[in-house]
Amino acid sequence: MIIVILAGGSGTRFWPLSRIRHPKQLMSVLGGKSMLQRTVERVLPLRPERIMVITNCLQAGETADQLASLTEVPVEVLAEPVGRNTAPAVGLAARLAAATPETVMAVLPADHVIPDVENFCAILRRGVEAARDGKLVTLGIAPTRPETGYGYLEVAGGSAGAGPFPVSRFVEKPDRERAEQFLASGNYYWNSGMFLWRADTILAELQRHLPAVHRGLMAIEVSADGTASGGQIDDFYRTVQPESIDYGVMERSERVVMIPASFTWSDVGSWNALPEVLEGDANGNVIINAAGEVLADASECLVYGGGKMVALLGVSDLVVVETPDALLVCSRDRAQEVRGIVGELQRRGLGEYL
Amino acid sequence: MIIVILAGGSGTRFWPLSRIRHPKQLMSVLGGKSMLQRTVERVLPLRPERIMVITNCLQAGETADQLASLTEVPVEVLAEPVGRNTAPAVGLAARLAAATPETVMAVLPADHVIPDVENFCAILRRGVEAARDGKLVTLGIAPTRPETGYGYLEVAGGSAGAGPFPVSRFVEKPDRERAEQFLASGNYYWNSGMFLWRADTILAELQRHLPAVHRGLMAIEVSADGTASGGQIDDFYRTVQPESIDYGVMERSERVVMIPASFTWSDVGSWNALPEVLEGDANGNVIINAAGEVLADASECLVYGGGKMVALLGVSDLVVVETPDALLVCSRDRAQEVRGIVGELQRRGLGEYL
Repeated sequence: MIIVILAGGSGTRFWPLSRIRHPKQLMSVLGGKSMLQRTVERVLPLRPERIMVITNCLQAGETADQLASLTEVPVEVLAEPVGRNTAPAVGLAARLAAATPETVMAVLPADHVIPDVENFCAILRRGVEAARDGKLVTLGIAPTRPETGYGYLEVAGGSAGAGPFPVSRFVEKPDRERAEQFLASGNYYWNSGMFLWRADTILAELQRHLPAVHRGLMAIEVSADGTASGGQIDDFYRTVQPESIDYGVMERSERVVMIPASFTWSDVGSWNALPEVLEGDANGNVIINAAGEVLADASECLVYGGGKMVALLGVSDLVVVETPDALLVCSRDRAQEVRGIVGELQRRGLGEYL
Repeated sequence: MIIVILAGGSGTRFWPLSRIRHPKQLMSVLGGKSMLQRTVERVLPLRPERIMVITNCLQAGETADQLASLTEVPVEVLAEPVGRNTAPAVGLAARLAAATPETVMAVLPADHVIPDVENFCAILRRGVEAARDGKLVTLGIAPTRPETGYGYLEVAGGSAGAGPFPVSRFVEKPDRERAEQFLASGNYYWNSGMFLWRADTILAELQRHLPAVHRGLMAIEVSADGTASGGQIDDFYRTVQPESIDYGVMERSERVVMIPASFTWSDVGSWNALPEVLEGDANGNVIINAAGEVLADASECLVYGGGKMVALLGVSDLVVVETPDALLVCSRDRAQEVRGIVGELQRRGLGEYL
């Protein structure tokens, strides 16, 4: 089994803690190990032969540093010279498995929170079985709210049981009304971005649905130990068009099945999502990275405190984040708009804060 | 003329920027020079012979440092071994003027904001004239709001003109209803805590109304150059009872007159008062000590930013203060309660944050 971890995200919604060179997956948002480190540790019980982490040039250094002594399984860090969305990255990983084409690959984002490792591994093992049969397996999350920020999978005719279920339709991020219909119907799952397939299956599907990507991949010579020259990989990225594996393959393929991921899951899309995965005090306050706290009439606040004494007085529903060079105070229901702050800093040419 | 600056306040309401050893008057709350330094500079056009700053042991070092090279007029820093309220401090200053008993003393708090120096000096000069006649002169501030945090002076029969006016009554901090009556009547002024009198006048009044304080003072031997031994001053403080000059003398004396202080004035009693004396942006935001700011739907916020990039998103009416070891986020209308935070830190034995 090969684990492919997609780790190149920019994570602007966690500014000012996340930065271009230090995005969400490299952060210790939960305290302790980073989300990337937790993602790698989570798959170790599956005893993978290889772990590939695909990231970008700006983050490759810290990514490698964080993984250096984490596990005895060798972790390969691949730095994309330029971002081309997910299909080229996933394809490259499959191509590098040329020596063992029937190996099952699990593709996992580096920035998801999944506390229950045992259940996670059990679901992945079930995914491996379905993948061995030549399926493209996607893990679906049973929706708990009418979320408009995710894509959905429709499972025809209900989904009682553990699956796998054939997927009848992929739906892009819906508006609120449709999201509520999806939630009510019981036939829809969130598209988690976690996939399993055999290397040869995904290469065959790429050949069918994204032939240019496939041609580029096959031009890369893979040695017996599963590596390729950096120059050939760079050439591939320079010429390939950006394509997402969802749009480019999953929405078109007839081999797609879904397994319900029955574990607690969050993609922690913004500061506002952290209290979902971290336990707060009786008033819903979550105080991270503080030397201590004095809370007086404070409720539903999230503070990332820069190691200081934090005092809150008569405030509620705030996100407060302090880093060595920046201080953010934000209404919790506006947390998604933090990326707009980053955009504004970029427009002003304040690159040192990005 | 002698200037006596009372500088020993603890300033807990400006936590976390103010600390026991670094109270409000030593802070640069307005940027640039501290309030103490500004208080000293403000009186220089009056060409005082002596400037005495009375503070406490914990603050004496930084007080002296801040005043070391500020002016050519020698500034004497007197460190009280123990706080005994204002009457002993004021009496000591008068006693040290024994060589020139008819000299007029101006007693000024170190932590008031008075931007208009010219007008301030003009009012003080008028005060000096009244003080030469043997009056106890207090400067009154025409109230602009029904403030319940100040004492009031009642001026019998109105106060058209520049004064001095006889004071018929001192009133302790009133409740809201009475404060509104005072504001409406036009006969009431805020007690600013700024006084002028001759050294011999105040000593005579101390003898009459606080004879024990006076006896203690007269036991101090004053040399020809207006100094006394530290041991004798310490003995005085150790034995004298705490008395305020307002309660102990001003409320009882028949020599009290008031001069309206027609200059812009604030005692900057809490973080919430800073926007009164600092100009904000079009949305009422005041951002101090920041490397820059990105404000999105932010209004009526006061931020003391620790030199960082400050970003506010969808928030209003907040006080945010960052120091090297603490972070305060507070609703503006609760700013007076910041002293409660300090009390809580004290109860928990967290002396390093006091």
